[in-house]
Amino acid sequence: MPIKTDQLMAHLATINRFSTNEVGQNRLVYTSNWIKGQRQLIAWGHQAGMRATVDAYGTVYLDIAGSQAPDKIIATGSHMDTVVHGGPYDGLYGVLGGFQAICELIQVLGRPKKTLRLISFSEEEGSRFPATFSGSKHYCRVEDVAGIQDHAGIDFNKARQAAVAKLKEANVHTGLPSVPTTFTELHIEQGPRLINAHRQIGLVTSIVGQRRFTITVNGLSNHAGTTPMADRHDAFQIAVTLISRLRQLAASISRQLTFTVGEVHVWPNTSNVIPGKVTFSIDTRHVDAAVLNRFEVGIRNKAVDFSIPPISVTVNRWVADKPVQLDASLLQRNENLAAKLGLSYQKLASGAGHDSEIMSRVTPTTMIFVPSIGGISHAPQEKTSPSDLHNGVDLLRESLKQQAY
Amino acid sequence: MPIKTDQLMAHLATINRFSTNEVGQNRLVYTSNWIKGQRQLIAWGHQAGMRATVDAYGTVYLDIAGSQAPDKIIATGSHMDTVVHGGPYDGLYGVLGGFQAICELIQVLGRPKKTLRLISFSEEEGSRFPATFSGSKHYCRVEDVAGIQDHAGIDFNKARQAAVAKLKEANVHTGLPSVPTTFTELHIEQGPRLINAHRQIGLVTSIVGQRRFTITVNGLSNHAGTTPMADRHDAFQIAVTLISRLRQLAASISRQLTFTVGEVHVWPNTSNVIPGKVTFSIDTRHVDAAVLNRFEVGIRNKAVDFSIPPISVTVNRWVADKPVQLDASLLQRNENLAAKLGLSYQKLASGAGHDSEIMSRVTPTTMIFVPSIGGISHAPQEKTSPSDLHNGVDLLRESLKQQAY
Repeated sequence: MPIKTDQLMAHLATINRFSTNEVGQNRLVYTSNWIKGQRQLIAWGHQAGMRATVDAYGTVYLDIAGSQAPDKIIATGSHMDTVVHGGPYDGLYGVLGGFQAICELIQVLGRPKKTLRLISFSEEEGSRFPATFSGSKHYCRVEDVAGIQDHAGIDFNKARQAAVAKLKEANVHTGLPSVPTTFTELHIEQGPRLINAHRQIGLVTSIVGQRRFTITVNGLSNHAGTTPMADRHDAFQIAVTLISRLRQLAASISRQLTFTVGEVHVWPNTSNVIPGKVTFSIDTRHVDAAVLNRFEVGIRNKAVDFSIPPISVTVNRWVADKPVQLDASLLQRNENLAAKLGLSYQKLASGAGHDSEIMSRVTPTTMIFVPSIGGISHAPQEKTSPSDLHNGVDLLRESLKQQAY
Repeated sequence: MPIKTDQLMAHLATINRFSTNEVGQNRLVYTSNWIKGQRQLIAWGHQAGMRATVDAYGTVYLDIAGSQAPDKIIATGSHMDTVVHGGPYDGLYGVLGGFQAICELIQVLGRPKKTLRLISFSEEEGSRFPATFSGSKHYCRVEDVAGIQDHAGIDFNKARQAAVAKLKEANVHTGLPSVPTTFTELHIEQGPRLINAHRQIGLVTSIVGQRRFTITVNGLSNHAGTTPMADRHDAFQIAVTLISRLRQLAASISRQLTFTVGEVHVWPNTSNVIPGKVTFSIDTRHVDAAVLNRFEVGIRNKAVDFSIPPISVTVNRWVADKPVQLDASLLQRNENLAAKLGLSYQKLASGAGHDSEIMSRVTPTTMIFVPSIGGISHAPQEKTSPSDLHNGVDLLRESLKQQAY
């Protein structure tokens, strides 16, 4: 089957160009770059003769109805949003690689027996609002979002409604499509295992569980010059000690337990004023929920230990995603297809969360990884070779073909 | 000598009312609140029969010419500007307390032998533009400001000229008056030592030296879930360890050495991304320059120790103010006067910078502190009891009387 190499690379480049003159990719959910991305995808879907639907969260569905069993839906896709200063492939590769695979199938084989569906989820990263996977959670009827704001104080639902209104201008259907029969997500690995092992394909067995917390340390703001060291209640210095202890605790529980403090805010954040308040995030992940439980108990105990008046330390958990086993039968079929295509592969667990985590709760779900150069992701340097990008699309296309034709 | 209690409190209230409906006091240099403050002071000076002069930086000078030695100038005063969300007394108390002391002397004793001068410096805090003490530096012919902007991009000299034009409408003299024979600054302590020691007056021996640095830690940004802990170059975790070590180092060098990390920036500052870059400020102060030198060497050595590729740590020093010894003879005379007035006092070093730091370079200079309740300053909660405010004016008045009559 001929591969339209240039179309995939050109499509990736077109949407990544919306962040021109910025550092990396910035398609945070419901921003103008994000709206441009979803609008562009809808336009390409219309050109390819696909039926475009937008749901209330701004997820875009492009369908080719099946000729014999239209209610059997073979779905693929990923998310349109990125982190702040993200890379060119996280999320977008699964969207445009899936679109490429479906286009190739339609062009060569015509209409499928079962419905083929490309999904571009609205949001997965949790980088603008304190909520993750809001697109797939809405689609899977798992959970809806309410009462949260971004750092500028903009309400999630206000931003959502304004952005969805922009998508609806594109002559689309609206409503919440039904859950698919299977779901396959194509994604870059975002880690160094495939590239280090010289494998072309990763077949994902499971996804780690993750929890995210916001820790707030309240101290007392005061003058940096006139307040003796012994009289201070410096929220930032307390945060520094607390973070050191938590890092040691995480390492003592399990070497595979990740511990990341990625977001830090200090008030008033002025060089000559002792900080009165600090908030910081904790992102922690492991394949075993019991390990995550143990660390969470440790975090909560430390917060109590550090709360000596007038200091207070509070813990707010805002993500608690369980470890997930993906579908063994779909993985076995992809293993056979990879072998048939002559692609080297290995099975692995995903250290990153993915929409597949949510999808797997409602339908058999599998993931296909391609290598990340240097293991880098969530950064402008994120990179995968074009041949590896095409290998992933090849395997996905054969999988969709096997299921839908 | 009778004290016009109500006049001081009424004058403070009048100028603080210009920030009504704001959080704290906001008389940032050359803003409308600041212009109102300097104009009000000029009006009161004219009512008291004083000669008002405004210099090119907007500093206001109110003079009563001496009858016998008019070229001997006994000066007092402080600054009109505040920090953002500042308190009611930092700066303003020294201006209006000095005005009160001179008015009482004129009313009771008539014209002095030497000239009495009240100075209301334009700017000391460095809160609008990245420059501190610009008023006293201009008056002392130490340094002029050029090529700097505020956060809104407004040029210092443009803002200055517009504001000074407003002051000139008040029928004032213009030009740069000569440097005084002595200078005495009345100020709140901005720290807890007097209030904790139950002392009414602080006699300032010296002003601490201070240095400010920006430390930049460059690491490698990566995905928080897929990057094994052992493979990370997490700029924030490195900063946390470095800050812990520097805090220990500061404490080991001197318990009086202050160490404040007040301003912290993390890139990209997203919960699920390992930070690739962190900058943080260090503000450190001590009365002994040798101690500051030792700590600076420690900071620079630690930066080298922590720079293990791909990590780099750089140090940029952007403030280096030397410790200043104030005039011992003026302090001795104030000590005698305080004892005579029955005021409890202690000698202390100032942990905050003051216009006196600049004045002491060109003329014998002394400072009188009054207690700060809770040691709080640079905040709306800044407070001193009226009786303590009056005690400071009493001592200042007796000092000016001894020198000028």
